[in-house]
Amino acid sequence: MAVVDLSRWEGAPGKKTRLYRLFYQYGPGEGLGMFLPVDHGLEHGPIDFLPNPPSADPEYIFRLAVEGRYSAVVFQYGIASRFYAPFAGRVPLVLKINGKTNIPPADEPISPLTATVEDAVRLGADAVGYTLYVGSPLQDQDFKQFLEVRREAERFGMPVIVWAYPRGRYVEEKGGRDSLYAIEYAARVAAELGADLIKVNVPEFVPEKMTRLPKPYDSTVLDVKEAIARVVWAAAGVPVLVSGGSKIGDEDLLARARASLEGGAVGLIFGRNIFQRPYDEAIRLSHRIAGMMQAFRRAPVKP
Amino acid sequence: MAVVDLSRWEGAPGKKTRLYRLFYQYGPGEGLGMFLPVDHGLEHGPIDFLPNPPSADPEYIFRLAVEGRYSAVVFQYGIASRFYAPFAGRVPLVLKINGKTNIPPADEPISPLTATVEDAVRLGADAVGYTLYVGSPLQDQDFKQFLEVRREAERFGMPVIVWAYPRGRYVEEKGGRDSLYAIEYAARVAAELGADLIKVNVPEFVPEKMTRLPKPYDSTVLDVKEAIARVVWAAAGVPVLVSGGSKIGDEDLLARARASLEGGAVGLIFGRNIFQRPYDEAIRLSHRIAGMMQAFRRAPVKP
Amino acid sequence: MAVVDLSRWEGAPGKKTRLYRLFYQYGPGEGLGMFLPVDHGLEHGPIDFLPNPPSADPEYIFRLAVEGRYSAVVFQYGIASRFYAPFAGRVPLVLKINGKTNIPPADEPISPLTATVEDAVRLGADAVGYTLYVGSPLQDQDFKQFLEVRREAERFGMPVIVWAYPRGRYVEEKGGRDSLYAIEYAARVAAELGADLIKVNVPEFVPEKMTRLPKPYDSTVLDVKEAIARVVWAAAGVPVLVSGGSKIGDEDLLARARASLEGGAVGLIFGRNIFQRPYDEAIRLSHRIAGMMQAFRRAPVKP
Amino acid sequence: MAVVDLSRWEGAPGKKTRLYRLFYQYGPGEGLGMFLPVDHGLEHGPIDFLPNPPSADPEYIFRLAVEGRYSAVVFQYGIASRFYAPFAGRVPLVLKINGKTNIPPADEPISPLTATVEDAVRLGADAVGYTLYVGSPLQDQDFKQFLEVRREAERFGMPVIVWAYPRGRYVEEKGGRDSLYAIEYAARVAAELGADLIKVNVPEFVPEKMTRLPKPYDSTVLDVKEAIARVVWAAAGVPVLVSGGSKIGDEDLLARARASLEGGAVGLIFGRNIFQRPYDEAIRLSHRIAGMMQAFRRAPVKP
Amino acid sequence: MAVVDLSRWEGAPGKKTRLYRLFYQYGPGEGLGMFLPVDHGLEHGPIDFLPNPPSADPEYIFRLAVEGRYSAVVFQYGIASRFYAPFAGRVPLVLKINGKTNIPPADEPISPLTATVEDAVRLGADAVGYTLYVGSPLQDQDFKQFLEVRREAERFGMPVIVWAYPRGRYVEEKGGRDSLYAIEYAARVAAELGADLIKVNVPEFVPEKMTRLPKPYDSTVLDVKEAIARVVWAAAGVPVLVSGGSKIGDEDLLARARASLEGGAVGLIFGRNIFQRPYDEAIRLSHRIAGMMQAFRRAPVKP
Repeated sequence: MAVVDLSRWEGAPGKKTRLYRLFYQYGPGEGLGMFLPVDHGLEHGPIDFLPNPPSADPEYIFRLAVEGRYSAVVFQYGIASRFYAPFAGRVPLVLKINGKTNIPPADEPISPLTATVEDAVRLGADAVGYTLYVGSPLQDQDFKQFLEVRREAERFGMPVIVWAYPRGRYVEEKGGRDSLYAIEYAARVAAELGADLIKVNVPEFVPEKMTRLPKPYDSTVLDVKEAIARVVWAAAGVPVLVSGGSKIGDEDLLARARASLEGGAVGLIFGRNIFQRPYDEAIRLSHRIAGMMQAFRRAPVKP
Repeated sequence: MAVVDLSRWEGAPGKKTRLYRLFYQYGPGEGLGMFLPVDHGLEHGPIDFLPNPPSADPEYIFRLAVEGRYSAVVFQYGIASRFYAPFAGRVPLVLKINGKTNIPPADEPISPLTATVEDAVRLGADAVGYTLYVGSPLQDQDFKQFLEVRREAERFGMPVIVWAYPRGRYVEEKGGRDSLYAIEYAARVAAELGADLIKVNVPEFVPEKMTRLPKPYDSTVLDVKEAIARVVWAAAGVPVLVSGGSKIGDEDLLARARASLEGGAVGLIFGRNIFQRPYDEAIRLSHRIAGMMQAFRRAPVKP
Repeated sequence: MAVVDLSRWEGAPGKKTRLYRLFYQYGPGEGLGMFLPVDHGLEHGPIDFLPNPPSADPEYIFRLAVEGRYSAVVFQYGIASRFYAPFAGRVPLVLKINGKTNIPPADEPISPLTATVEDAVRLGADAVGYTLYVGSPLQDQDFKQFLEVRREAERFGMPVIVWAYPRGRYVEEKGGRDSLYAIEYAARVAAELGADLIKVNVPEFVPEKMTRLPKPYDSTVLDVKEAIARVVWAAAGVPVLVSGGSKIGDEDLLARARASLEGGAVGLIFGRNIFQRPYDEAIRLSHRIAGMMQAFRRAPVKP
Repeated sequence: MAVVDLSRWEGAPGKKTRLYRLFYQYGPGEGLGMFLPVDHGLEHGPIDFLPNPPSADPEYIFRLAVEGRYSAVVFQYGIASRFYAPFAGRVPLVLKINGKTNIPPADEPISPLTATVEDAVRLGADAVGYTLYVGSPLQDQDFKQFLEVRREAERFGMPVIVWAYPRGRYVEEKGGRDSLYAIEYAARVAAELGADLIKVNVPEFVPEKMTRLPKPYDSTVLDVKEAIARVVWAAAGVPVLVSGGSKIGDEDLLARARASLEGGAVGLIFGRNIFQRPYDEAIRLSHRIAGMMQAFRRAPVKP
Repeated sequence: MAVVDLSRWEGAPGKKTRLYRLFYQYGPGEGLGMFLPVDHGLEHGPIDFLPNPPSADPEYIFRLAVEGRYSAVVFQYGIASRFYAPFAGRVPLVLKINGKTNIPPADEPISPLTATVEDAVRLGADAVGYTLYVGSPLQDQDFKQFLEVRREAERFGMPVIVWAYPRGRYVEEKGGRDSLYAIEYAARVAAELGADLIKVNVPEFVPEKMTRLPKPYDSTVLDVKEAIARVVWAAAGVPVLVSGGSKIGDEDLLARARASLEGGAVGLIFGRNIFQRPYDEAIRLSHRIAGMMQAFRRAPVKP
């Protein structure tokens, strides 16, 4: 069990101020975070909104985030700049500052910038999100791009959440994007490069793919809690957020969330599992998750 | 039915000033727009002017735009800088700031900059136009280029109209550039990236191509009004303009225009359908379209 | 028949001042131009000087340009910076600011910068020359490079002559670099992008290549005058200069020059046809061309 | 036998100050260095920490470096910026400023920047580390990137340690990355480009690969001391540090270390051979190496 | 016979000052130059030093250059910055500012920058050397890079010596890098782009390669003096230096040197032919060459 601990903070005051808002003032609080990311219109297309058509409307998402008591909503710039104003102050914003469509294949992925850290500052965002495609053949461009983001974020005291995603043809050759090997590696790379928070998917253990993994990963099979614990270990002290992925049932989602926190994650970042449910169901589920998270809160401290 | 509504504007005053000119002071007005784009000399070559040779002359186009009472004429920089002065103030200018020839194949398209937002300011333009090739293998370069344009446009208070065009070999593999899937996706990407207005083509539903579409697009067939309504839904509140495409008959064009507005478009942007007709026919048709649009005007308000 | 008309000039005074020198103070004058381009050492190698070895010496060319009463001589920077000083004021200079060798194949041509507009200003040049390879697979790089040149030229009031050259593998697939289709398209692109003057080759009508042309170009066969008139039409009012190409006989060259002017070109730009002739022949031919051009001069006006 | 001799220093005072700390104030001293590099989380992934899981924790490494009396610890920016503060002043820091994952193949390697020299200055680092992939098909990008680093390092008086690594498909074709030919060449390139210190691997002499080497390398077989002496010769006076590579036994490691110093190296830079051992073993081995190095110290001088 | 004639200099005073030192104050003087280039450690690797191992030591080279009375020694930045200080003022320095290894094949060569002109100024160099790979598929990058160098050199009054090297797969297809065609073309390109001095290899006439040459080169066979005269002709007045290439006998080298000067070269630039000989032999040979050059000196003039 872990939280974002700001009591012994040695970093920039700006980062602390913003992390305090995300992990203490809004959402479940006491060092835990619950995020609502909706950049699917860019990453997957409007197809992800079809199961629940009103979700294509950013106002709908903002209302959901406020009523669902999220730590923050995550949007791309075009959406945030047009729709955030009426909700400013009622729910924090994480500005996702890169992205791509999924129309070209993911052999050599890179996620180009769609906004800057300065844009995030101007919009009043409390963090930026950056997708790093670890293991991509274009990693050299990605690292350079991230270097600029990391430095600009330090200049403004803006926390950087890295979407640590192992991707590309060589990741597939070496056991796939969801292996423990790949996700541990991606989390570590994000830590080595300077992430403030790391977003990961839950590792999967698919026997037919595991034969392509290096030892001892090829014979390691863990449950969700153990797997997240390993990713947290690899992340070298940088707090870890766990994604939800495609939509699953309520109980499965709650079990996955609980195991992630038991494994040491400091928060959850669930998109489709929330917005693809009807509004009232989404709110109820959000409150159930938040309730479950109470057990993982640290005792309140003055940060 | 929709209009460009400036009464609850929260954005930059410069953008509002210019959108007011385009959608309230010139053309059909009351929130509706009718644009005359003539960048075909670059995109297709002079071949598009051969059906009506005088149309190759920019003065001819400017006269047509003034007499046809268009909201604005759209030109590339070389044409605008050389020919706009005598018409300045009589018809607004939208400066198209990127473009390419159609000589190389469109497998990996990108539309390089041909002018800057600053050029547009200097010429007195009221918006810039930018072609975004959504789904292109070069999307990373395109997104970066658009980011610079979007930021420069914000600095100057200049509206950005995105030509949201799904293109490239992977778009073709996934059902083609004119599918509802592709056009909805492209419109959404433009919105996510920060377009102020989005120009789209009317979706087509070609059975033999639809088998390549993801569910449920592979079994969705809509008429023009319904299809535009879906694109407007995907665009997340960013106003949509509908293109005319290659030349069709008067009644077909009017029907298409009407259905587009019924579907929620705020305007029309017709090029070849206007300038490939003889001058007098073009004027008559322009006035008929403008007349038809009256029914979609919002009640006048003080913006 | 056409001339460079400065009487209704709305552009920058610097451009007008320099165009006045090129088209009124030197050469045939009264709006007509006769240019001597010698960048062949870069574009083709010294092989082009072998028919008349003294022509490799830039002093020889400058003397020829002065005595032949040319509107300007065209050189690359290395030559101009080293040899122009003794001739400064006696014949204008056009600085060619990009170029390449012909050693690699021309499948994906681009002509990189070899000098800047600022270099041209410092050398006292009255225009810069830029080769635009229209239709090249690298058109996106070329357009961006030209954009910088065009903007720098505006800043300094320096006219830009675009060598509008259709080139690259797709131009060949679509009927070849010398087709009317390709040359019209190239001229139009130069105009759309902001050329002040456009240099073109004379279209050719080769039956076996014309089958690859789009309609109606595949069945259009014109003489030189008619073909140039079409290119002038496509160029949308931007003045056109006609190239000489490889060396031909005196009478053929004169006929070609006359037909070009009848077609609406404002000048001629002949290199190999001049410098590959012995000095005295070259002078005599230059004077014959200038004499023929008298018939095309506009009545003198105060610009 | 060689040391870093600062007594006749003609370079920047900043570089001297920092080299003094690395080679005289900390570690074995008197011109010798013993470095603990831990960038394996980025270069190889957390897999390198599995033999000794606590080593994934940067605090563990810092404690080891302090107690093991190292000249410096080498970390990437993300780790150093987060964990160095409590150890600042107790052990110097070398900031590794580029890196990559080993997921894509090493056919065309380049190591993109992950931090800047300015970052190193701000963190209080006493040198930066840069991996140069000598012989890579991307050497042109690598050289340009290094040029910027070298110049920025001169501006701040920051020493640059070059990881001189022959890599890429052509290195393999020409006898492999561990040949004397390749390592000598890499060391020389680092010297020609401006390295202050050069980190090399110990050459290997594998008969089946040596047939691909140019004469006389194809018939040259040397022991460790002789091989290092050759690399020191090739390095043209720039001090050489020798790597440890993958984990070997204590006595083998000590022998290798001694032979390296006898060959003229000024220090050792051992990672996996230290941190993959249990903590107490690692400390004991570190002290044994330091003890062995006493014999190679120069007589103390006032630098 | 030719010399660097500064008596009618129209260029920048800084360039004249530095050329005066190279061609009048040091070396053979009176307009002639004798250069000692040692960048082989980068271009070929330490293998070039094996015939005479002490030559790997830059101090050895500097002593040789001083005692051999060279006009200048040519080094890369890493070597010059570390070793030049004790010899500063005793022999001029030419800083080679780009370079590459010969490990990847030379199909698409480009020589990236390893230093800047500003570095050369700071080191007290009297010229910079730049390798231009004429005809390379990467010529567009090379030309752009050279443009920056040329402009920076003008800003600082620093002469630029261009290593005019025809290279790349298309040069090989068209008769090879040592043909008169290729070398003439390369020399001309250097002149067109703004070289102050041009370094060339002596053309070779290999019958089996000459069939691939364009007319009339395919049937032109010249001796060294005639061939250099042709290259000097192609260079359009820019002074030419002739390289030595791989090591040959004393008398052959002297004959080649003499023929080069008779052909119009202003100097010699011999590396391996000097430093691969034992020190005393190298000094004797250097003095013999210098003695031979006396016959080609111009009468002393006050520049």
